[in-house]
Amino acid sequence: MEKLSSVQNSRVKAWQKLQSKKGRQASQTYLLDGWHLVEEAIKHDGKLHAIMATPEQLAQHQDELPLGVPVFEINDDIAKKLSDLVTPQGIFAEVTLPVASRSPQFIHDGAWLFLDGIQDPGNIGTMVRTADAAGYSGVVFGQGTVDPYSAKALRAMQGSQFHLTLTVGDLAEWTAAFTQNGLNVYGTKLDPSAADLFTIPAQSQFALIMGNEGQGMRTDLAEMTTQNLYIPLTGQAESLNVAVAAGIAMFALKNR
Amino acid sequence: MEKLSSVQNSRVKAWQKLQSKKGRQASQTYLLDGWHLVEEAIKHDGKLHAIMATPEQLAQHQDELPLGVPVFEINDDIAKKLSDLVTPQGIFAEVTLPVASRSPQFIHDGAWLFLDGIQDPGNIGTMVRTADAAGYSGVVFGQGTVDPYSAKALRAMQGSQFHLTLTVGDLAEWTAAFTQNGLNVYGTKLDPSAADLFTIPAQSQFALIMGNEGQGMRTDLAEMTTQNLYIPLTGQAESLNVAVAAGIAMFALKNR
Repeated sequence: MEKLSSVQNSRVKAWQKLQSKKGRQASQTYLLDGWHLVEEAIKHDGKLHAIMATPEQLAQHQDELPLGVPVFEINDDIAKKLSDLVTPQGIFAEVTLPVASRSPQFIHDGAWLFLDGIQDPGNIGTMVRTADAAGYSGVVFGQGTVDPYSAKALRAMQGSQFHLTLTVGDLAEWTAAFTQNGLNVYGTKLDPSAADLFTIPAQSQFALIMGNEGQGMRTDLAEMTTQNLYIPLTGQAESLNVAVAAGIAMFALKNR
Repeated sequence: MEKLSSVQNSRVKAWQKLQSKKGRQASQTYLLDGWHLVEEAIKHDGKLHAIMATPEQLAQHQDELPLGVPVFEINDDIAKKLSDLVTPQGIFAEVTLPVASRSPQFIHDGAWLFLDGIQDPGNIGTMVRTADAAGYSGVVFGQGTVDPYSAKALRAMQGSQFHLTLTVGDLAEWTAAFTQNGLNVYGTKLDPSAADLFTIPAQSQFALIMGNEGQGMRTDLAEMTTQNLYIPLTGQAESLNVAVAAGIAMFALKNR
């Protein structure tokens, strides 16, 4: 096991670059921060390039680390450089980014979540986690949706990226392909003239589109859907947080 | 209108103290940051003590400010001192904290959300916003639940504190009083031996308890409820974000 003691070490600098989307794209890897996420990667055969841990974390998890993956001992200063947290746990893994794009033409079943222009990494991560919990097959990140492999998004995701398909895609293309394959595509709108979500029968094969936090779904996309839905609000709040709305809609639409 | 130009000004220092719970308790006021929240306070007759705004914000909103409330012109440095944001909008209001406690004995109707040990201010704010959107009567902050008047909680709340009752309370006392008054009190558990949320008929008068992000509900409280519910998870995620779970449960339980 190699011991790293300087934040100037070239490996440390390379890992730090994974904090930006540009850096992740260049190396085709991303960084997991904290034992819970590293453990999910190990359990679900995530492709690990390296594990980095402080002596305390190594002592605690040594027996659980997979064979054949290079392990680096780091110190607290390096841990702080790799983390966006004030007090990081001190264990990290570098893992392969999954294949970023899939062809919707060949998808004929499952429940899918399409994200159109979602801006907040916490919302993105929470929606992936909820899609996993609700038994969805995958999440498609459309144009204008922020990268799901930032530390903040991954923290909210809680390892769900290892449980379902994540892909980027042109949502107009995905919507067209799904409807062509006979799958319903439901948009969501903050508009009581859309169909009441709770009147739609639960089903197994469809896509649900959630739109941007402030602007909602793109108009051209809303015009392509099978139907657009709204969640009936009976109080005085004008809208719901998008991750909460997604949770309500995902559970309401999918067969249990 | 008084112009303030120094961050050392005693008024500025007094407003800064409202960033802590201790400071808010001492003055019995809290701070709203940004026009959307200030506007909600004005529209819903929040008790305003002062409005503080930069020249740009004053020019934009002068005609919408209520008569009889002292307005202070501030500069960008002061705005940054009052805000936890990197680039604050530049308009704030100091408003009265609502009456903090109510007696559950006299409550005989409405849907209520009880929060047991919720730690994240964003989750708290989001749950209040969702309770408002779903037409709930109020939210009770139990022991161990963080203060809902921090900047982060208020940002997630989006002004919903002006639309429904918020109160602190001993949840054991509230649960006992509700059940005595004939209202169902539903706990939530991450335990498939509890009742499936989606089998419970929608109703108008009840309380729903959401528990701590990591630990769930207190055991003693869970033993006092009418029934404990779980949300059936069909994927591999072990749990849902608490604000998402609360949203799903609030909409599922309440009559529309």
